[in-house]
Amino acid sequence: MNNIFITGASGFLGANLVKHFITAGLKVTAVIRANGSRESFDQLNCHVIEYDGSISSLQECLDSNTTVIHTASYYVAEHTSQDLPVLIESNLKYGLDLLEAMRTSGARRILNIGTAWQGYEGVDRRPVNLYAATKQSFEDLIAYYCDAEEFSAISLRLNDTYGEEDKRMKLLKLLISRGVNQKALDMSGGEQIINITHVEDVCRAISFAINIMPECSNIDKYNLQSNSNFSLRELAKLIEDEIGIAVPINWSVKEYRRREVMIPTNNFPLKGFVFEYNIRDGIRLIYDTLKAKTQNRSEI
Amino acid sequence: MNNIFITGASGFLGANLVKHFITAGLKVTAVIRANGSRESFDQLNCHVIEYDGSISSLQECLDSNTTVIHTASYYVAEHTSQDLPVLIESNLKYGLDLLEAMRTSGARRILNIGTAWQGYEGVDRRPVNLYAATKQSFEDLIAYYCDAEEFSAISLRLNDTYGEEDKRMKLLKLLISRGVNQKALDMSGGEQIINITHVEDVCRAISFAINIMPECSNIDKYNLQSNSNFSLRELAKLIEDEIGIAVPINWSVKEYRRREVMIPTNNFPLKGFVFEYNIRDGIRLIYDTLKAKTQNRSEI
Repeated sequence: MNNIFITGASGFLGANLVKHFITAGLKVTAVIRANGSRESFDQLNCHVIEYDGSISSLQECLDSNTTVIHTASYYVAEHTSQDLPVLIESNLKYGLDLLEAMRTSGARRILNIGTAWQGYEGVDRRPVNLYAATKQSFEDLIAYYCDAEEFSAISLRLNDTYGEEDKRMKLLKLLISRGVNQKALDMSGGEQIINITHVEDVCRAISFAINIMPECSNIDKYNLQSNSNFSLRELAKLIEDEIGIAVPINWSVKEYRRREVMIPTNNFPLKGFVFEYNIRDGIRLIYDTLKAKTQNRSEI
Repeated sequence: MNNIFITGASGFLGANLVKHFITAGLKVTAVIRANGSRESFDQLNCHVIEYDGSISSLQECLDSNTTVIHTASYYVAEHTSQDLPVLIESNLKYGLDLLEAMRTSGARRILNIGTAWQGYEGVDRRPVNLYAATKQSFEDLIAYYCDAEEFSAISLRLNDTYGEEDKRMKLLKLLISRGVNQKALDMSGGEQIINITHVEDVCRAISFAINIMPECSNIDKYNLQSNSNFSLRELAKLIEDEIGIAVPINWSVKEYRRREVMIPTNNFPLKGFVFEYNIRDGIRLIYDTLKAKTQNRSEI
Protein backbone atom coordinates (compact mmCIF):
# COMPACT_ATOMS: atom_id res chain seq x y z
CA MET A 1 0.00 0.00 0.00
CA ASN A 2 2.17 2.85 -1.27
CA ASN A 3 -0.34 5.01 -3.03
CA ILE A 4 -3.66 6.24 -1.73
CA PHE A 5 -6.29 7.48 -4.16
CA ILE A 6 -9.09 9.43 -2.46
CA THR A 7 -12.31 10.41 -4.21
CA GLY A 8 -14.51 13.15 -2.77
CA ALA A 9 -11.35 14.95 -1.66
CA SER A 10 -13.19 18.27 -1.42
CA GLY A 11 -15.69 16.82 1.02
CA PHE A 12 -15.33 16.91 4.80
CA LEU A 13 -14.17 13.31 5.21
CA GLY A 14 -12.15 13.26 1.98
CA ALA A 15 -10.21 16.41 2.86
CA ASN A 16 -9.36 15.01 6.28
CA LEU A 17 -8.24 11.72 4.72
CA VAL A 18 -5.92 13.53 2.31
CA LYS A 19 -4.16 15.23 5.23
CA HIS A 20 -4.17 12.05 7.32
CA PHE A 21 -2.40 9.95 4.69
CA ILE A 22 0.05 12.69 3.70
CA THR A 23 1.01 12.93 7.38
CA ALA A 24 1.42 9.15 7.41
CA GLY A 25 4.01 9.56 4.65
CA LEU A 26 2.03 8.03 1.81
CA LYS A 27 1.77 9.21 -1.78
CA VAL A 28 -1.73 10.69 -2.06
CA THR A 29 -3.89 11.41 -5.08
CA ALA A 30 -6.86 13.68 -4.30
CA VAL A 31 -9.74 13.37 -6.76
CA ILE A 32 -12.06 16.34 -7.10
CA ARG A 33 -14.87 17.16 -9.51
CA ALA A 34 -14.15 18.84 -12.83
CA ASN A 35 -13.45 22.54 -12.33
CA GLY A 36 -13.56 22.12 -8.54
CA SER A 37 -11.43 24.40 -6.38
CA ARG A 38 -7.82 23.26 -5.90
CA GLU A 39 -7.07 25.99 -3.39
CA SER A 40 -7.27 23.82 -0.27
CA PHE A 41 -4.64 21.49 -1.73
CA ASP A 42 -2.12 24.23 -2.61
CA GLN A 43 0.00 23.78 0.50
CA LEU A 44 -0.34 20.00 0.57
CA ASN A 45 2.04 17.42 -0.81
CA CYS A 46 -0.47 15.57 -2.95
CA HIS A 47 -1.44 15.13 -6.57
CA VAL A 48 -4.85 16.53 -7.54
CA ILE A 49 -6.84 15.13 -10.45
CA GLU A 50 -10.34 15.86 -11.72
CA TYR A 51 -13.12 13.37 -12.43
CA ASP A 52 -14.92 14.70 -15.49
CA GLY A 53 -17.46 11.88 -15.85
CA SER A 54 -15.15 9.69 -17.91
CA ILE A 55 -13.33 6.51 -16.93
CA SER A 56 -10.12 7.80 -18.44
CA SER A 57 -10.07 10.86 -16.18
CA LEU A 58 -9.70 8.46 -13.22
CA GLN A 59 -7.00 6.21 -14.66
CA GLU A 60 -4.12 8.55 -13.87
CA CYS A 61 -2.28 7.55 -10.67
CA LEU A 62 -4.02 4.17 -10.47
CA ASP A 63 -1.77 1.11 -10.53
CA SER A 64 -1.28 -2.18 -8.75
CA ASN A 65 0.23 -0.39 -5.72
CA THR A 66 -2.82 1.83 -5.25
CA THR A 67 -5.43 1.59 -2.54
CA VAL A 68 -8.58 3.51 -3.43
CA ILE A 69 -10.75 5.17 -0.79
CA HIS A 70 -14.09 6.09 -2.30
CA THR A 71 -15.81 8.78 -0.24
CA ALA A 72 -17.54 10.72 -3.03
CA SER A 73 -21.29 10.53 -2.77
CA TYR A 74 -24.49 12.53 -2.73
CA TYR A 75 -26.55 12.49 0.44
CA VAL A 76 -30.23 13.18 0.80
CA ALA A 77 -32.31 12.08 3.80
CA GLU A 78 -35.70 12.03 2.07
CA HIS A 79 -35.44 12.22 -1.69
CA THR A 80 -37.72 13.84 -4.22
CA SER A 81 -37.75 13.03 -7.94
CA GLN A 82 -35.40 15.95 -8.54
CA ASP A 83 -32.67 14.15 -6.58
CA LEU A 84 -32.58 11.12 -8.87
CA PRO A 85 -30.17 12.33 -11.56
CA VAL A 86 -27.51 13.31 -9.03
CA LEU A 87 -28.10 10.18 -6.90
CA ILE A 88 -27.50 8.05 -10.00
CA GLU A 89 -24.54 10.10 -11.18
CA SER A 90 -22.77 10.41 -7.83
CA ASN A 91 -23.63 7.15 -6.09
CA LEU A 92 -23.72 4.70 -9.01
CA LYS A 93 -22.08 6.06 -12.15
CA TYR A 94 -19.06 7.65 -10.43
CA GLY A 95 -18.39 4.47 -8.47
CA LEU A 96 -18.78 2.16 -11.45
CA ASP A 97 -16.49 4.37 -13.54
CA LEU A 98 -13.99 4.12 -10.69
CA LEU A 99 -14.17 0.31 -10.55
CA GLU A 100 -13.68 0.14 -14.30
CA ALA A 101 -10.76 2.58 -14.17
CA MET A 102 -9.21 0.35 -11.50
CA ARG A 103 -9.79 -2.80 -13.56
CA THR A 104 -8.17 -1.34 -16.64
CA SER A 105 -5.17 0.06 -14.78
CA GLY A 106 -4.34 -2.83 -12.49
CA ALA A 107 -5.54 -1.32 -9.19
CA ARG A 108 -7.36 -3.91 -7.13
CA ARG A 109 -7.88 -2.60 -3.61
CA ILE A 110 -10.78 -0.39 -2.59
CA LEU A 111 -12.25 0.82 0.66
CA ASN A 112 -15.74 2.12 0.03
CA ILE A 113 -17.57 4.41 2.40
CA GLY A 114 -20.99 2.94 3.05
CA THR A 115 -23.64 3.94 5.53
CA ALA A 116 -25.05 2.29 8.64
CA TRP A 117 -28.40 3.12 7.03
CA GLN A 118 -27.91 0.12 4.71
CA GLY A 119 -29.32 -1.89 7.62
CA TYR A 120 -32.68 -0.45 8.70
CA GLU A 121 -33.89 -1.91 12.00
CA GLY A 122 -30.83 -4.13 12.13
CA VAL A 123 -31.58 -6.00 8.89
CA ASP A 124 -28.63 -6.11 6.48
CA ARG A 125 -29.41 -5.04 2.92
CA ARG A 126 -32.46 -3.12 4.10
CA PRO A 127 -31.73 0.51 3.23
CA VAL A 128 -33.40 3.27 5.24
CA ASN A 129 -33.76 5.64 2.30
CA LEU A 130 -32.94 5.92 -1.40
CA TYR A 131 -29.51 7.33 -0.59
CA ALA A 132 -28.68 4.16 1.36
CA ALA A 133 -30.31 2.04 -1.37
CA THR A 134 -27.95 3.46 -3.98
CA LYS A 135 -25.04 2.73 -1.61
CA GLN A 136 -26.27 -0.86 -1.26
CA SER A 137 -26.77 -1.14 -4.99
CA PHE A 138 -23.21 0.06 -5.60
CA GLU A 139 -21.88 -2.46 -3.07
CA ASP A 140 -23.27 -5.20 -5.34
CA LEU A 141 -21.19 -3.82 -8.18
CA ILE A 142 -18.07 -3.83 -6.00
CA ALA A 143 -18.82 -7.44 -5.02
CA TYR A 144 -18.96 -8.36 -8.71
CA TYR A 145 -15.55 -6.79 -9.39
CA CYS A 146 -14.18 -8.67 -6.38
CA ASP A 147 -15.52 -11.98 -7.64
CA ALA A 148 -14.78 -11.58 -11.34
CA GLU A 149 -11.75 -9.29 -11.37
CA GLU A 150 -9.95 -10.30 -8.17
CA PHE A 151 -10.53 -7.02 -6.36
CA SER A 152 -10.14 -6.79 -2.57
CA ALA A 153 -12.69 -4.55 -0.94
CA ILE A 154 -13.96 -3.25 2.33
CA SER A 155 -17.28 -1.56 2.78
CA LEU A 156 -16.98 0.61 5.88
CA ARG A 157 -20.44 1.70 6.95
CA LEU A 158 -20.36 4.95 8.84
CA ASN A 159 -22.75 6.52 11.28
CA ASP A 160 -22.70 10.25 11.77
CA THR A 161 -19.34 12.01 11.75
CA TYR A 162 -18.32 15.39 13.16
CA GLY A 163 -15.31 17.63 13.49
CA GLU A 164 -14.65 21.15 14.64
CA GLU A 165 -13.81 22.21 11.08
CA ASP A 166 -16.92 20.65 9.50
CA LYS A 167 -18.65 23.39 7.54
CA ARG A 168 -21.93 21.47 7.51
CA MET A 169 -24.21 22.50 10.38
CA LYS A 170 -24.84 18.95 11.54
CA LEU A 171 -26.57 18.00 14.76
CA LEU A 172 -23.79 18.23 17.34
CA LYS A 173 -22.61 21.62 16.12
CA LEU A 174 -26.19 22.82 15.76
CA LEU A 175 -27.07 21.96 19.36
CA ILE A 176 -23.92 23.57 20.74
CA SER A 177 -24.40 26.73 18.67
CA ARG A 178 -27.97 27.04 19.96
CA GLY A 179 -26.55 26.84 23.48
CA VAL A 180 -24.12 29.62 22.65
CA ASN A 181 -26.59 31.93 20.89
CA GLN A 182 -29.64 30.85 22.95
CA LYS A 183 -31.90 30.57 19.92
CA ALA A 184 -34.57 27.92 20.48
CA LEU A 185 -34.54 24.81 18.30
CA ASP A 186 -37.62 22.80 17.33
CA MET A 187 -36.94 19.06 17.52
CA SER A 188 -38.72 15.72 17.21
CA GLY A 189 -39.31 13.51 20.23
CA GLY A 190 -35.56 13.11 20.65
CA GLU A 191 -35.68 9.47 21.70
CA GLN A 192 -33.72 8.31 18.62
CA ILE A 193 -30.26 7.07 19.49
CA ILE A 194 -27.33 8.38 17.51
CA ASN A 195 -23.72 7.35 17.28
CA ILE A 196 -21.27 9.98 16.16
CA THR A 197 -17.57 9.66 15.47
CA HIS A 198 -14.92 12.34 15.29
CA VAL A 199 -13.48 12.60 11.79
CA GLU A 200 -9.95 11.84 13.04
CA ASP A 201 -11.21 8.58 14.46
CA VAL A 202 -12.87 7.89 11.10
CA CYS A 203 -9.52 8.46 9.34
CA ARG A 204 -7.77 6.16 11.82
CA ALA A 205 -10.49 3.53 11.39
CA ILE A 206 -10.03 3.66 7.62
CA SER A 207 -6.28 3.14 8.07
CA PHE A 208 -7.01 0.26 10.42
CA ALA A 209 -9.48 -1.30 7.97
CA ILE A 210 -7.08 -1.00 5.03
CA ASN A 211 -4.59 -3.03 7.01
CA ILE A 212 -7.08 -5.87 7.36
CA MET A 213 -8.16 -5.72 3.72
CA PRO A 214 -9.26 -9.25 2.72
CA GLU A 215 -7.55 -11.49 0.20
CA CYS A 216 -8.37 -10.77 -3.40
CA SER A 217 -11.83 -11.75 -4.65
CA ASN A 218 -13.49 -10.80 -1.38
CA ILE A 219 -15.44 -7.93 0.10
CA ASP A 220 -15.66 -7.48 3.86
CA LYS A 221 -18.23 -5.27 5.54
CA TYR A 222 -17.79 -3.33 8.76
CA ASN A 223 -19.83 -0.85 10.72
CA LEU A 224 -17.92 1.94 12.41
CA GLN A 225 -19.72 2.40 15.68
CA SER A 226 -18.34 3.64 18.98
CA ASN A 227 -19.61 2.51 22.36
CA SER A 228 -21.19 5.94 22.89
CA ASN A 229 -24.83 5.60 22.00
CA PHE A 230 -26.95 8.51 23.19
CA SER A 231 -30.49 9.56 22.53
CA LEU A 232 -30.78 13.12 21.27
CA ARG A 233 -32.21 14.14 24.63
CA GLU A 234 -29.23 12.58 26.42
CA LEU A 235 -26.85 14.28 24.02
CA ALA A 236 -28.43 17.68 24.72
CA LYS A 237 -28.00 17.06 28.47
CA LEU A 238 -24.36 16.09 27.97
CA ILE A 239 -23.76 19.29 26.05
CA GLU A 240 -25.39 21.39 28.75
CA ASP A 241 -23.29 19.63 31.35
CA GLU A 242 -20.05 20.07 29.40
CA ILE A 243 -20.42 23.69 28.34
CA GLY A 244 -22.40 24.86 31.38
CA ILE A 245 -25.12 26.53 29.32
CA ALA A 246 -28.74 25.45 28.84
CA VAL A 247 -29.59 24.50 25.24
CA PRO A 248 -33.10 25.81 24.45
CA ILE A 249 -34.87 22.94 22.66
CA ASN A 250 -38.59 22.52 22.01
CA TRP A 251 -38.85 18.75 22.10
CA SER A 252 -41.62 16.88 20.23
CA VAL A 253 -42.58 19.92 18.18
CA LYS A 254 -41.57 18.15 14.97
CA GLU A 255 -42.68 14.73 13.80
CA TYR A 256 -40.17 11.91 13.62
CA ARG A 257 -39.00 11.38 10.08
CA ARG A 258 -40.66 8.59 8.14
CA ARG A 259 -38.41 5.53 8.71
CA GLU A 260 -36.56 7.39 11.47
CA VAL A 261 -33.64 5.28 12.68
CA MET A 262 -34.25 4.87 16.42
CA ILE A 263 -31.29 2.54 17.08
CA PRO A 264 -28.10 2.52 14.97
CA THR A 265 -27.25 -0.77 13.27
CA ASN A 266 -24.03 -2.56 14.10
CA ASN A 267 -24.24 -5.81 12.17
CA PHE A 268 -20.53 -6.00 11.39
CA PRO A 269 -18.47 -4.50 14.25
CA LEU A 270 -14.95 -3.36 13.37
CA LYS A 271 -13.36 -5.38 16.15
CA GLY A 272 -10.02 -4.28 17.56
CA PHE A 273 -10.31 -0.65 16.58
CA VAL A 274 -9.96 1.76 19.53
CA PHE A 275 -11.59 5.19 19.40
CA GLU A 276 -9.47 8.09 20.65
CA TYR A 277 -12.19 10.71 21.02
CA ASN A 278 -15.11 10.49 23.39
CA ILE A 279 -18.18 12.61 23.00
CA ARG A 280 -17.17 15.10 25.72
CA ASP A 281 -13.89 15.76 23.86
CA GLY A 282 -15.93 16.45 20.76
CA ILE A 283 -18.36 18.79 22.50
CA ARG A 284 -15.46 20.70 24.07
CA LEU A 285 -13.61 21.03 20.74
CA ILE A 286 -16.65 22.27 18.88
CA TYR A 287 -17.60 24.63 21.68
CA ASP A 288 -14.11 26.12 21.85
CA THR A 289 -14.04 26.57 18.07
CA LEU A 290 -17.43 28.26 18.07
CA LYS A 291 -16.43 30.50 20.97
CA ALA A 292 -13.21 31.53 19.23
CA LYS A 293 -15.15 32.44 16.10
CA THR A 294 -17.70 34.32 18.17
CA GLN A 295 -14.97 36.35 19.80
CA ASN A 296 -13.47 37.10 16.40
CA ARG A 297 -16.74 38.12 14.84
CA SER A 298 -18.62 39.12 17.99
CA GLU A 299 -21.42 36.84 16.84
CA ILE A 300 -22.07 33.31 15.64
CA MET B 1 -54.62 -5.73 -13.00
CA ASN B 2 -56.35 -3.76 -15.71
CA ASN B 3 -53.46 -1.92 -17.30
CA ILE B 4 -50.16 -3.34 -18.44
CA PHE B 5 -47.20 -1.04 -18.97
CA ILE B 6 -44.37 -2.67 -20.92
CA THR B 7 -40.91 -1.15 -21.26
CA GLY B 8 -38.56 -2.33 -24.00
CA ALA B 9 -41.59 -2.74 -26.25
CA SER B 10 -39.42 -2.62 -29.39
CA GLY B 11 -37.34 -5.55 -28.20
CA PHE B 12 -38.03 -9.18 -28.99
CA LEU B 13 -39.62 -10.07 -25.65
CA GLY B 14 -41.32 -6.69 -25.21
CA ALA B 15 -42.96 -6.80 -28.62
CA ASN B 16 -44.28 -10.31 -27.94
CA LEU B 17 -45.60 -9.22 -24.55
CA VAL B 18 -47.48 -6.30 -26.09
CA LYS B 19 -49.29 -8.67 -28.45
CA HIS B 20 -49.83 -11.27 -25.72
CA PHE B 21 -51.57 -8.86 -23.34
CA ILE B 22 -53.60 -7.16 -26.08
CA THR B 23 -54.85 -10.61 -27.07
CA ALA B 24 -55.68 -11.25 -23.42
CA GLY B 25 -57.95 -8.19 -23.54
CA LEU B 26 -55.92 -5.88 -21.35
CA LYS B 27 -55.19 -2.20 -21.83
CA VAL B 28 -51.56 -2.05 -22.91
CA THR B 29 -49.05 0.80 -22.86
CA ALA B 30 -45.95 0.10 -24.95
CA VAL B 31 -42.89 2.14 -23.93
CA ILE B 32 -40.24 2.73 -26.56
CA ARG B 33 -37.14 4.92 -26.66
CA ALA B 34 -37.36 8.55 -27.77
CA ASN B 35 -37.69 8.75 -31.54
CA GLY B 36 -37.99 4.96 -31.80
CA SER B 37 -40.03 3.47 -34.63
CA ARG B 38 -43.77 3.19 -33.94
CA GLU B 39 -44.45 1.28 -37.14
CA SER B 40 -44.77 -2.15 -35.56
CA PHE B 41 -47.50 -0.84 -33.25
CA ASP B 42 -49.61 0.76 -36.01
CA GLN B 43 -52.02 -2.13 -36.32
CA LEU B 44 -52.13 -2.89 -32.61
CA ASN B 45 -54.66 -1.72 -30.07
CA CYS B 46 -52.18 -0.20 -27.64
CA HIS B 47 -50.95 3.17 -26.48
CA VAL B 48 -47.31 3.98 -27.34
CA ILE B 49 -45.23 6.38 -25.26
CA GLU B 50 -41.57 7.36 -25.41
CA TYR B 51 -39.03 7.34 -22.59
CA ASP B 52 -36.81 10.35 -23.17
CA GLY B 53 -34.58 9.92 -20.12
CA SER B 54 -36.92 11.82 -17.79
CA ILE B 55 -39.16 10.51 -15.02
CA SER B 56 -42.06 12.59 -16.31
CA SER B 57 -41.98 10.89 -19.72
CA LEU B 58 -42.87 7.63 -17.95
CA GLN B 59 -45.68 8.94 -15.73
CA GLU B 60 -48.32 8.90 -18.43
CA CYS B 61 -50.57 5.80 -18.20
CA LEU B 62 -49.23 4.83 -14.76
CA ASP B 63 -51.79 4.60 -11.98
CA SER B 64 -52.80 2.34 -9.13
CA ASN B 65 -54.36 -0.16 -11.57
CA THR B 66 -51.16 -0.57 -13.55
CA THR B 67 -48.85 -3.55 -13.57
CA VAL B 68 -45.43 -2.69 -15.00
CA ILE B 69 -43.34 -5.22 -16.91
CA HIS B 70 -39.79 -3.94 -17.22
CA THR B 71 -38.00 -5.69 -20.07
CA ALA B 72 -35.81 -2.82 -21.31
CA SER B 73 -32.14 -3.52 -20.82
CA TYR B 74 -28.76 -3.56 -22.51
CA TYR B 75 -27.03 -6.91 -22.85
CA VAL B 76 -23.33 -7.56 -23.26
CA ALA B 77 -21.67 -10.90 -22.53
CA GLU B 78 -18.18 -9.59 -21.85
CA HIS B 79 -18.06 -5.84 -21.39
CA THR B 80 -15.39 -3.33 -22.28
CA SER B 81 -15.10 0.16 -20.80
CA GLN B 82 -17.04 1.51 -23.77
CA ASP B 83 -20.12 -0.42 -22.62
CA LEU B 84 -20.35 1.30 -19.25
CA PRO B 85 -22.35 4.42 -20.17
CA VAL B 86 -25.10 2.40 -21.81
CA LEU B 87 -25.07 -0.29 -19.10
CA ILE B 88 -25.61 2.44 -16.50
CA GLU B 89 -28.19 4.28 -18.56
CA SER B 90 -30.24 1.25 -19.64
CA ASN B 91 -29.90 -1.11 -16.69
CA LEU B 92 -29.81 1.30 -13.76
CA LYS B 93 -31.00 4.81 -14.65
CA TYR B 94 -33.96 3.73 -16.79
CA GLY B 95 -35.15 1.33 -14.11
CA LEU B 96 -34.76 3.81 -11.26
CA ASP B 97 -36.59 6.49 -13.27
CA LEU B 98 -39.36 3.93 -13.77
CA LEU B 99 -39.61 3.11 -10.04
CA GLU B 100 -39.76 6.81 -9.24
CA ALA B 101 -42.39 7.43 -11.93
CA MET B 102 -44.43 4.60 -10.37
CA ARG B 103 -44.00 6.00 -6.86
CA THR B 104 -45.16 9.45 -7.86
CA SER B 105 -48.15 8.22 -9.86
CA GLY B 106 -49.49 5.56 -7.53
CA ALA B 107 -48.45 2.46 -9.50
CA ARG B 108 -47.13 -0.20 -7.15
CA ARG B 109 -46.79 -3.50 -9.05
CA ILE B 110 -43.75 -4.42 -11.13
CA LEU B 111 -42.47 -7.55 -12.78
CA ASN B 112 -38.81 -7.08 -13.61
CA ILE B 113 -36.97 -9.22 -16.12
CA GLY B 114 -33.80 -10.50 -14.50
CA THR B 115 -31.31 -13.05 -15.70
CA ALA B 116 -30.38 -16.52 -14.51
CA TRP B 117 -26.82 -15.15 -14.72
CA GLN B 118 -27.43 -13.36 -11.41
CA GLY B 119 -26.51 -16.73 -9.86
CA TYR B 120 -23.13 -17.90 -11.14
CA GLU B 121 -22.40 -21.52 -10.20
CA GLY B 122 -25.68 -21.70 -8.33
CA VAL B 123 -24.85 -18.93 -5.85
CA ASP B 124 -27.56 -16.28 -5.58
CA ARG B 125 -26.34 -12.66 -5.89
CA ARG B 126 -23.20 -13.83 -7.69
CA PRO B 127 -23.46 -12.27 -11.16
CA VAL B 128 -21.69 -13.94 -14.07
CA ASN B 129 -20.80 -10.69 -15.81
CA LEU B 130 -21.25 -6.94 -15.49
CA TYR B 131 -24.57 -7.11 -17.33
CA ALA B 132 -25.90 -9.48 -14.67
CA ALA B 133 -24.27 -7.35 -11.94
CA THR B 134 -26.23 -4.29 -13.08
CA LYS B 135 -29.40 -6.42 -13.05
CA GLN B 136 -28.61 -7.51 -9.49
CA SER B 137 -27.80 -3.96 -8.50
CA PHE B 138 -31.15 -2.77 -9.87
CA GLU B 139 -32.96 -5.54 -7.99
CA ASP B 140 -31.69 -3.94 -4.76
CA LEU B 141 -33.32 -0.68 -5.78
CA ILE B 142 -36.61 -2.47 -6.45
CA ALA B 143 -36.35 -4.14 -3.04
CA TYR B 144 -35.99 -0.71 -1.46
CA TYR B 145 -39.12 0.61 -3.17
CA CYS B 146 -40.96 -2.52 -2.00
CA ASP B 147 -39.88 -2.00 1.58
CA ALA B 148 -40.22 1.78 1.79
CA GLU B 149 -42.98 2.53 -0.71
CA GLU B 150 -45.16 -0.58 -0.49
CA PHE B 151 -44.39 -1.85 -3.97
CA SER B 152 -45.09 -5.47 -4.92
CA ALA B 153 -42.47 -6.96 -7.19
CA ILE B 154 -41.37 -10.08 -8.94
CA SER B 155 -37.93 -10.60 -10.38
CA LEU B 156 -38.28 -13.21 -13.10
CA ARG B 157 -34.84 -14.45 -14.05
CA LEU B 158 -34.74 -15.73 -17.57
CA ASN B 159 -32.44 -18.11 -19.34
CA ASP B 160 -32.10 -17.96 -23.09
CA THR B 161 -35.22 -17.28 -25.12
CA TYR B 162 -36.00 -17.98 -28.75
CA GLY B 163 -38.74 -17.57 -31.30
CA GLU B 164 -39.12 -18.04 -35.01
CA GLU B 165 -39.51 -14.28 -35.49
CA ASP B 166 -36.47 -13.33 -33.40
CA LYS B 167 -34.26 -11.15 -35.57
CA ARG B 168 -31.23 -11.80 -33.38
CA MET B 169 -29.13 -14.68 -34.70
CA LYS B 170 -29.00 -16.50 -31.37
CA LEU B 171 -27.70 -19.99 -30.87
CA LEU B 172 -30.67 -22.18 -31.82
CA LYS B 173 -31.34 -20.27 -35.03
CA LEU B 174 -27.64 -20.11 -35.81
CA LEU B 175 -27.19 -23.87 -35.52
CA ILE B 176 -30.26 -24.62 -37.65
CA SER B 177 -29.24 -22.09 -40.30
CA ARG B 178 -25.81 -23.71 -40.52
CA GLY B 179 -27.55 -27.03 -41.10
CA VAL B 180 -29.59 -25.46 -43.87
CA ASN B 181 -26.73 -23.61 -45.58
CA GLN B 182 -24.01 -26.15 -44.65
CA LYS B 183 -21.53 -23.50 -43.61
CA ALA B 184 -19.20 -24.81 -40.89
CA LEU B 185 -19.37 -23.21 -37.43
CA ASP B 186 -16.45 -22.95 -35.00
CA MET B 187 -17.55 -23.68 -31.45
CA SER B 188 -16.14 -24.15 -27.97
CA GLY B 189 -16.08 -27.55 -26.26
CA GLY B 190 -19.86 -27.60 -26.31
CA GLU B 191 -20.27 -29.27 -22.92
CA GLN B 192 -22.03 -26.25 -21.42
CA ILE B 193 -25.68 -26.90 -20.67
CA ILE B 194 -28.25 -24.42 -21.88
CA ASN B 195 -31.91 -23.97 -21.15
CA ILE B 196 -33.95 -22.14 -23.74
CA THR B 197 -37.58 -21.11 -23.64
CA HIS B 198 -39.90 -20.20 -26.47
CA VAL B 199 -40.98 -16.57 -26.23
CA GLU B 200 -44.66 -17.54 -26.04
CA ASP B 201 -43.90 -19.64 -22.99
CA VAL B 202 -42.03 -16.65 -21.54
CA CYS B 203 -45.11 -14.46 -22.09
CA ARG B 204 -47.34 -17.08 -20.47
CA ALA B 205 -44.89 -17.41 -17.55
CA ILE B 206 -44.99 -13.64 -17.04
CA SER B 207 -48.80 -13.76 -16.96
CA PHE B 208 -48.59 -16.65 -14.50
CA ALA B 209 -46.12 -14.78 -12.31
CA ILE B 210 -48.19 -11.58 -12.27
CA ASN B 211 -51.06 -13.62 -10.90
CA ILE B 212 -48.94 -14.72 -7.94
CA MET B 213 -47.52 -11.24 -7.30
CA PRO B 214 -46.72 -10.99 -3.58
CA GLU B 215 -48.42 -8.72 -1.07
CA CYS B 216 -47.20 -5.16 -1.03
CA SER B 217 -43.77 -4.47 0.49
CA ASN B 218 -42.33 -7.70 -0.91
CA ILE B 219 -40.21 -8.86 -3.83
CA ASP B 220 -40.31 -12.49 -4.94
CA LYS B 221 -37.65 -14.04 -7.17
CA TYR B 222 -38.19 -16.81 -9.70
CA ASN B 223 -36.06 -18.53 -12.28
CA LEU B 224 -37.79 -19.47 -15.50
CA GLN B 225 -36.26 -22.82 -16.39
CA SER B 226 -37.81 -25.66 -18.33
CA ASN B 227 -37.01 -29.29 -17.71
CA SER B 228 -35.10 -29.40 -21.00
CA ASN B 229 -31.45 -29.00 -20.18
CA PHE B 230 -29.13 -29.91 -23.05
CA SER B 231 -25.45 -29.48 -23.65
CA LEU B 232 -24.66 -27.67 -26.87
CA ARG B 233 -23.45 -30.95 -28.34
CA GLU B 234 -26.72 -32.65 -27.42
CA LEU B 235 -28.67 -29.74 -28.87
CA ALA B 236 -26.78 -30.02 -32.16
CA LYS B 237 -27.64 -33.74 -32.29
CA LEU B 238 -31.29 -33.02 -31.57
CA ILE B 239 -31.38 -30.52 -34.41
CA GLU B 240 -29.78 -32.99 -36.81
CA ASP B 241 -32.28 -35.61 -35.76
CA GLU B 242 -35.27 -33.28 -36.11
CA ILE B 243 -34.41 -31.66 -39.45
CA GLY B 244 -32.60 -34.65 -40.94
CA ILE B 245 -29.54 -32.63 -41.97
CA ALA B 246 -26.03 -32.76 -40.50
CA VAL B 247 -24.96 -29.49 -38.83
CA PRO B 248 -21.27 -28.88 -39.64
CA ILE B 249 -19.64 -27.83 -36.35
CA ASN B 250 -15.94 -27.67 -35.48
CA TRP B 251 -16.12 -28.41 -31.77
CA SER B 252 -13.43 -27.21 -29.37
CA VAL B 253 -11.95 -24.78 -31.87
CA LYS B 254 -12.85 -21.85 -29.66
CA GLU B 255 -12.03 -21.40 -25.99
CA TYR B 256 -14.80 -21.42 -23.45
CA ARG B 257 -15.72 -17.91 -22.39
CA ARG B 258 -14.19 -16.69 -19.15
CA ARG B 259 -16.81 -17.51 -16.46
CA GLU B 260 -18.69 -19.69 -18.95
CA VAL B 261 -21.91 -20.91 -17.39
CA MET B 262 -21.68 -24.72 -17.59
CA ILE B 263 -24.94 -25.44 -15.71
CA PRO B 264 -27.90 -23.03 -15.59
CA THR B 265 -28.93 -21.84 -12.14
CA ASN B 266 -32.42 -22.60 -10.85
CA ASN B 267 -32.39 -21.29 -7.29
CA PHE B 268 -36.01 -20.14 -7.30
CA PRO B 269 -38.13 -22.46 -9.49
CA LEU B 270 -41.41 -21.03 -10.79
CA LYS B 271 -43.45 -23.92 -9.44
CA GLY B 272 -46.76 -24.74 -11.08
CA PHE B 273 -45.98 -23.18 -14.44
CA VAL B 274 -46.34 -25.62 -17.35
CA PHE B 275 -44.34 -25.09 -20.54
CA GLU B 276 -46.24 -25.59 -23.81
CA TYR B 277 -43.30 -25.79 -26.17
CA ASN B 278 -40.65 -28.49 -26.11
CA ILE B 279 -37.34 -28.05 -27.82
CA ARG B 280 -38.30 -30.20 -30.83
CA ASP B 281 -41.30 -27.91 -31.46
CA GLY B 282 -38.94 -24.96 -31.40
CA ILE B 283 -36.44 -26.55 -33.78
CA ARG B 284 -39.23 -27.44 -36.18
CA LEU B 285 -40.74 -23.92 -36.09
CA ILE B 286 -37.42 -22.21 -36.69
CA TYR B 287 -36.46 -24.67 -39.42
CA ASP B 288 -39.78 -24.20 -41.22
CA THR B 289 -39.45 -20.41 -40.98
CA LEU B 290 -35.91 -20.48 -42.32
CA LYS B 291 -36.93 -22.84 -45.15
CA ALA B 292 -39.84 -20.60 -46.12
CA LYS B 293 -37.54 -17.59 -46.23
CA THR B 294 -35.01 -19.58 -48.27
CA GLN B 295 -37.66 -20.51 -50.78
CA ASN B 296 -38.75 -16.89 -51.02
CA ARG B 297 -35.24 -15.53 -51.43
CA SER B 298 -33.54 -18.67 -52.85
CA GLU B 299 -30.93 -18.21 -50.15
CA ILE B 300 -30.53 -17.73 -46.42
